[in-house]
Amino acid sequence: MQHSYAIVGTGAIGGYYGACLQQAGAEVHFLLRSDYDVVQRQGLRVDSVDGDFVLPQVNAYRDVMEMPLCDVVILALKTTQNHLLEKLLPPLLKDNGVVLVLQNGLGMEDLAAAIAGPQRVMGGLCFICSNKVGPGHIRHLDYKAIALGEYTPDHTPGGLTPRLEAIATDFEAANIPIRRTADLLLARWQKLLWNIPFNGLSVVLRATTQEMMADAAVRQLALEIMEEVGAIAAASGRPIAPTYLHDLIDHTDQMKPYLTSMRLDYDARRPLELDAIFNNPLQAAAQAGITVPRIDMLYRQLVFLDAQNR
Amino acid sequence: MQHSYAIVGTGAIGGYYGACLQQAGAEVHFLLRSDYDVVQRQGLRVDSVDGDFVLPQVNAYRDVMEMPLCDVVILALKTTQNHLLEKLLPPLLKDNGVVLVLQNGLGMEDLAAAIAGPQRVMGGLCFICSNKVGPGHIRHLDYKAIALGEYTPDHTPGGLTPRLEAIATDFEAANIPIRRTADLLLARWQKLLWNIPFNGLSVVLRATTQEMMADAAVRQLALEIMEEVGAIAAASGRPIAPTYLHDLIDHTDQMKPYLTSMRLDYDARRPLELDAIFNNPLQAAAQAGITVPRIDMLYRQLVFLDAQNR
Repeated sequence: MQHSYAIVGTGAIGGYYGACLQQAGAEVHFLLRSDYDVVQRQGLRVDSVDGDFVLPQVNAYRDVMEMPLCDVVILALKTTQNHLLEKLLPPLLKDNGVVLVLQNGLGMEDLAAAIAGPQRVMGGLCFICSNKVGPGHIRHLDYKAIALGEYTPDHTPGGLTPRLEAIATDFEAANIPIRRTADLLLARWQKLLWNIPFNGLSVVLRATTQEMMADAAVRQLALEIMEEVGAIAAASGRPIAPTYLHDLIDHTDQMKPYLTSMRLDYDARRPLELDAIFNNPLQAAAQAGITVPRIDMLYRQLVFLDAQNR
Repeated sequence: MQHSYAIVGTGAIGGYYGACLQQAGAEVHFLLRSDYDVVQRQGLRVDSVDGDFVLPQVNAYRDVMEMPLCDVVILALKTTQNHLLEKLLPPLLKDNGVVLVLQNGLGMEDLAAAIAGPQRVMGGLCFICSNKVGPGHIRHLDYKAIALGEYTPDHTPGGLTPRLEAIATDFEAANIPIRRTADLLLARWQKLLWNIPFNGLSVVLRATTQEMMADAAVRQLALEIMEEVGAIAAASGRPIAPTYLHDLIDHTDQMKPYLTSMRLDYDARRPLELDAIFNNPLQAAAQAGITVPRIDMLYRQLVFLDAQNR
């Protein structure tokens, strides 16, 4: 292991990847809030399709001021907590360190860059199905790969750098498959192609991916929403081949039935990640001057349901 | 009272108007199904904002073959029951009688006309808020006016006929305000302008009209859906002034908070009136070659929710 890691947000994502890194020998420091007491006492527990494991002892903190400077700060908070970044990031980051943004949606690296400086930000897109099922207790259900890319302030492709390779190597040593991507923005749009229809519809329709895919009307609707996402991506200089959309639908067909992250948030009455996954892409559409009525409608339905839910 | 009436569908609508007509002295015959025993024994009970009343004895039937021929057959079934019309209408209608279709949506008069003959069909649009709260027990909450118009097979304005005037006079004698309309199709589209957004969104968003109107995002969405309805109406030769849309929004603001008929159906796990209120208007859009993405999306969401609900 080449780096030390700080995990900001020890939940389904941060808790899982942090535990895997520590399990593989890395120095990892976990920031916790409500789970601090339990984790301090009992460590972290991961029930995983790849084999369960327990870390009886972890470096647990409830205040960033007590944490050491780290090479890599993994930002794995819900994006709805990003107003905290100004307090959380500066005390953690070495001068030559990097913030690795493992969050959903669009524009989250820009937020981190405004605080940490653009040269100290990378982005990762997690293709994983995991939940936090109790304090310090994560259930990893399926997948775990990350697409890793360099951030640039003008969103031009950042290329494949030595530090990207070094971090990728650390994750691979922890058995996390890494796709190195030279073009982070393209990867973000490719993920939004799935997240916008399926996260959104799973809340409005109170449905699993499998229930939605079994309904011809919803399949068609999901495809049309994907086409709107693709139109914004193209207008943002990242055209995506139509075959990619159909491959995504086919892939979703083969997924185990599961609840999307937005549906889990909704069911737990947590705020939905609407800015990251919907509003920022809609702003991109508005800037490009294109209309996306289905995404726009889905967004407003979600705004209403989110407000009623809390 | 100039006419005898058969009520096909003694629910929130048919039960209320039939009871008012009988209360005012008309000869009324009620077709019932599950409520037959209770109504045969106890009559009909109407709790109304205009004053409660009970009809201790009514002409109740559970089989149309036992009912007398009537001058006016009021069709007040849920449109999802219209596959029964072929059995229900012919035994009830005098040669010079008329089927008065008091149903939601588009195209319901065409169905009645295919069975009763186009010259024996009229349509009525009910602006009423009433629920059936128990067997033979109706709660009338607000409004009660009907817009009454003549049906024509090519949907050209049918004008104001003597029989329309005669039926209107009967209803007015029962204290039901009647708006005589020469153009039934225009009246249908004017009502769809409200029904499509508010019935549809009330189910998808699980909300009352008041909750929806209190949310700026949903107000805007409702208005955009209305504009799509207006576009189909215009393409069908019935342009509606934009001011009418804003008046409808203003009017909805002033309504008491209440659950739409589609929401009540959804909560009771009854089939939703999707063909009448959504699919037939969407067919009209398709025939006119115009795209209405918001209505289309709302329809498919409702198809899914309806299927999951039963």
